[in-house]
Amino acid sequence: MSLLKQYQEKYFRKFLNEFDKTVNDLFPDKISDLKDIFRYHLGLNDDPEKQGKRIRPLLTFLCTEGCGGIWESAIPAAIAIELIHNFSLIHDDIEDNGMSRRSKQTVWVKWGLARGINSGDAMFTSAFIALNKLEHKILSESLIDAYKLLSDTCLQLTIGQQLDIEFETRENITIADYYRMISGKTAALLSCCTQMGALISGLGLEDQMCYSKFGNEIGLAFQIYDDWLGIWGDPMVTGKSASSDLVEGKKSLPILIGLEKSKRFQERWLRKAITQDESATLAEWLCEDKVEESVMKEFRNWNCRALDTLSSLRCDKDIRSALFELAEKLLMRNR
Amino acid sequence: MSLLKQYQEKYFRKFLNEFDKTVNDLFPDKISDLKDIFRYHLGLNDDPEKQGKRIRPLLTFLCTEGCGGIWESAIPAAIAIELIHNFSLIHDDIEDNGMSRRSKQTVWVKWGLARGINSGDAMFTSAFIALNKLEHKILSESLIDAYKLLSDTCLQLTIGQQLDIEFETRENITIADYYRMISGKTAALLSCCTQMGALISGLGLEDQMCYSKFGNEIGLAFQIYDDWLGIWGDPMVTGKSASSDLVEGKKSLPILIGLEKSKRFQERWLRKAITQDESATLAEWLCEDKVEESVMKEFRNWNCRALDTLSSLRCDKDIRSALFELAEKLLMRNR
Repeated sequence: MSLLKQYQEKYFRKFLNEFDKTVNDLFPDKISDLKDIFRYHLGLNDDPEKQGKRIRPLLTFLCTEGCGGIWESAIPAAIAIELIHNFSLIHDDIEDNGMSRRSKQTVWVKWGLARGINSGDAMFTSAFIALNKLEHKILSESLIDAYKLLSDTCLQLTIGQQLDIEFETRENITIADYYRMISGKTAALLSCCTQMGALISGLGLEDQMCYSKFGNEIGLAFQIYDDWLGIWGDPMVTGKSASSDLVEGKKSLPILIGLEKSKRFQERWLRKAITQDESATLAEWLCEDKVEESVMKEFRNWNCRALDTLSSLRCDKDIRSALFELAEKLLMRNR
Repeated sequence: MSLLKQYQEKYFRKFLNEFDKTVNDLFPDKISDLKDIFRYHLGLNDDPEKQGKRIRPLLTFLCTEGCGGIWESAIPAAIAIELIHNFSLIHDDIEDNGMSRRSKQTVWVKWGLARGINSGDAMFTSAFIALNKLEHKILSESLIDAYKLLSDTCLQLTIGQQLDIEFETRENITIADYYRMISGKTAALLSCCTQMGALISGLGLEDQMCYSKFGNEIGLAFQIYDDWLGIWGDPMVTGKSASSDLVEGKKSLPILIGLEKSKRFQERWLRKAITQDESATLAEWLCEDKVEESVMKEFRNWNCRALDTLSSLRCDKDIRSALFELAEKLLMRNR
């Protein structure tokens, strides 16, 4: 069994038990349907394999143990981060008009808009309640730092999301704007996981910032790769239609670079919405005009940076290997 | 000038300056429209008289000073609570389809649904960021208690809101259900204000709970009075149409008691929606059948309890008088 898999097995049984218990403790009596909505969206009633990958808790535990901390002490933080991730999905699904997620109806489709918004809010605040269980496991000053880290991260997350929404109707988005958007929307929470591990283990701010940097770089590489998949990914594997981002008009990195580097793509894009039929041709143009190459270059750049940072981290040897494995898994998903 | 007015003048200049500064510091560069949305919804660009009553900060400062604390040290907490109150208004307006607030378009009407939801989320997390400024002003343990108080309060708030939404489509709501709903939706945040004052002043949990009780009782009385206004309030004063809760089919306390105590009201209510034309007659029935009397009895009960609790609080003499004045103002609004 791979090293990563071994750690995962070591962590997940106890983590999932505590996660389940935390959610039940939030709603001791059945007076509203919030508990049902939480359990449904968090997948707590589903088979562990169908529950989503729980990448963020895994990253948090690995970084805690890698820094010499006790992984169990990070459980409240891992639960808090997983709740934040899931709250943001509930609200994103409303904002993007998303009907299904993980092969199930989204919360707002199943329970209506009002309950969808409000249960996301309840999940958001539950993250801060969950975090409080770190009390007496770490120093009070560290717990305050953890609150600060989590709330600052959430602000970055909402700023990134706001930019993503604004980009839909904005022209002239630069590559710098794009990086600002994905830094918040995708990288901030992954960076929170890795920094949180270092924080909980009692490392100082300097080491924490190295861990944060690693999480940020992984996050940027991850999002760029996701953007690549949105145009050139195999529909059988991604579960989306081919070149879906072209048809949806999403201003992802390939589009932004395409608008800069390919005249024929720019002309066609600005004229009117792209149909499914022509999307393959446009994806082809982007390859011929070296746009795909540029996207992959950006990806490889962040990928290398992440792995360099990982190599230089103060970290347990086996955990470092597991983190390399995790990075590879995240960044080489089914091309 | 009344004692309350004197305290208000003492607090508000500095509070509003700090509030303004906190919001600007959250968004140092203009990369998204979040800062504009915050300033618009929080009324920071409006005349102080049009900004909303800022009842919650006022209550927080009075309780802090009443407990022997320095009111200025509570500014971060008052800002946090005001942000939570306003985040909940942004989302409530979407959930209730509300088009205007304080004579302005609501955020979601002006900026769209997606940005409305997300800017509410950003305001929510900003409350926790604002709270962190208590660091070094109070003990670390007290700051952790403040985080705990704020996050527990937000959970109560969302549970109350969820019940309110569920009640729209649920039958057989009991008076006990109603109290559970308003305890969360209205009383929890007022109770947080009063307890926060005691917490910040360094009082122990027992005194904090007395302050919390006072806030809770004020909150319940306030909401019941609001329900009374929703049927018998003067449209010229409330700014809503007469008997608006009857026409909107809102399951407020007069309706719930009416369904229990008045056969003719029950029959008419269950048959079909009530029109504006017949609402005056139904409001009259509720008076004749002693429903209005019962509602006022509930109100007076909570009002008396709140004032009794206030009398028994450990509190500075002048501040206690100002709190009596505030309670009277809140609970005797323009009948």
